[in-house]
Amino acid sequence: MQKPALALLIHGGAQNWSPQRWKARFDDACRDRRVVLMPDAALDPAEVHYAAVWKPVPGDLAAFPNLRAIFNLGAGVDALMADSSLPDVPLVRVAVADLTARMTEYVVLHVLMHHRQELYLRDSQREKRWAPKKQSPASAISVGIMGLGTLGADAAQVLARLGFRVAGWSRSERKVDGIECFHGTGQLDAFLKATNILVCLLPLTPDTTHILNRDLFAKLDATSPLGAPVVINAGRGGLQNEADILACLDDGTLGAASLDVYATEPLPADSRFWTHPKVVLTPHNAADTDPDEISKYVARQIERFEAGDALENVVDRGRGY
Amino acid sequence: MQKPALALLIHGGAQNWSPQRWKARFDDACRDRRVVLMPDAALDPAEVHYAAVWKPVPGDLAAFPNLRAIFNLGAGVDALMADSSLPDVPLVRVAVADLTARMTEYVVLHVLMHHRQELYLRDSQREKRWAPKKQSPASAISVGIMGLGTLGADAAQVLARLGFRVAGWSRSERKVDGIECFHGTGQLDAFLKATNILVCLLPLTPDTTHILNRDLFAKLDATSPLGAPVVINAGRGGLQNEADILACLDDGTLGAASLDVYATEPLPADSRFWTHPKVVLTPHNAADTDPDEISKYVARQIERFEAGDALENVVDRGRGY
Repeated sequence: MQKPALALLIHGGAQNWSPQRWKARFDDACRDRRVVLMPDAALDPAEVHYAAVWKPVPGDLAAFPNLRAIFNLGAGVDALMADSSLPDVPLVRVAVADLTARMTEYVVLHVLMHHRQELYLRDSQREKRWAPKKQSPASAISVGIMGLGTLGADAAQVLARLGFRVAGWSRSERKVDGIECFHGTGQLDAFLKATNILVCLLPLTPDTTHILNRDLFAKLDATSPLGAPVVINAGRGGLQNEADILACLDDGTLGAASLDVYATEPLPADSRFWTHPKVVLTPHNAADTDPDEISKYVARQIERFEAGDALENVVDRGRGY
Repeated sequence: MQKPALALLIHGGAQNWSPQRWKARFDDACRDRRVVLMPDAALDPAEVHYAAVWKPVPGDLAAFPNLRAIFNLGAGVDALMADSSLPDVPLVRVAVADLTARMTEYVVLHVLMHHRQELYLRDSQREKRWAPKKQSPASAISVGIMGLGTLGADAAQVLARLGFRVAGWSRSERKVDGIECFHGTGQLDAFLKATNILVCLLPLTPDTTHILNRDLFAKLDATSPLGAPVVINAGRGGLQNEADILACLDDGTLGAASLDVYATEPLPADSRFWTHPKVVLTPHNAADTDPDEISKYVARQIERFEAGDALENVVDRGRGY
């Protein structure tokens, strides 16, 4: 019998992700292990002990009777949680500094773009208008971050360093140095009432589906120098009610939106997001993960596990993240 | 005789700066002092002990025979240094945390915009193209900051926190925690050779006039994932050779430019900067100063001075900043 295998299942949605590139990285990172890119007709499914996956087809993982752990190659596990036949083995989220740093870049960039009136300034440039408007300091703006895991906490700290007032909200209680933290549904309204720029980095679960909707937007603070509040979603498309975002941008409930994720990706050509003057659109590239870093992370986790240590960043299936 | 006066001389170029608003702020900040907005025919020039100025007309200040100190209401004193009749009294630069924080916002925003391919992504949005390109981590990009005073040092530290490799260059030797510091003409080429995104925050002096020219751009490092290097000038328009910037953008020596300052301001309607697809243009609003903070700073300096303490942030006239 051959060495137990690490199976790679990499499917749709992983733009710019070449399965072959991932295989090469995993071969490098797991030198003493057999890495098999699925599908592979020659492979006996019983030989697979570990699977590293990105959006596998529901049912794919159930085919491995001796699976010991599943590694998700991105931060969000919502696609996996939707697979009712998912084997009952530890499911590990990726948590690497590279991904955190990239998300912080995205969040800081988009908060600053709205704070510093970039939509207005680009319009002015196009129209050849030299017409600066009054610019408030960062200390006049409250940024509220929904989701205070590794990603939210890191972005919060850089924003605070830039002078923004920063608060965070999470489902269960969290503490982040120097950041006012709210939690649970009971404190959500108080958090929203103090927020001018809302950044959403929540995991997608049944509880958070369409949490970004008109009711929520209407509770944000519209009295800052920014005027109407701004929403930035770099979590998952399923978190947002897209019709509500468009209607709220149109009627002034929202002043602007930065969106990296959408209900359907790639975003259909007929979506009004493409052309809306208040939308800053990116093609789900807020935090592209680096195969190098992730394959090393998975290799390290497997080593730990085989040495009898606990896996890190294991998903709580009850919570869904 | 009336109390000695603080004369306010606020002239051209101070967009969004209402002299009356400044007077009100200074009245508040200097309650025990007579604040006079110039010109004031009723004022005996001999009564003026202090002047707070923005781009006064050359010769204006020479009219005050009992002047003890001059306070410049912005960071750059190049306009004052060009006045050959400037009285030989201490000339004080503004140095307030509010101005530093605003400049850091601008620098971080524009570095991130170029690093995160904003010009490409906005084009993609306009053309309804879902086409993310490979995105390198910040650690693959070297940002070089020319000018390591209060402003440069603060921006450098936030950029380093975001993961960029950051170096700085200044005329005389400076040390900034965690930043590789170069100085003097002898180390300029080594600094440029290691720089992918060049941020210029230098004071404008005879030595730095047109320092941003083709020779300098050609020495920057074009081998990063960014491709051709990027220049960001938030110092003074006089630092840049504008024909060279345009020619270098056209021939690919530079990949893009963010410009906040220009040889002539407001930027003339026929400048190609307005329409150049690789230029991100702002109307000299990188760090609008807050009259509240500045009037308090001036009041505090005058108090110190009258109590026998040294003024802070006094310009070295030999260096010109």
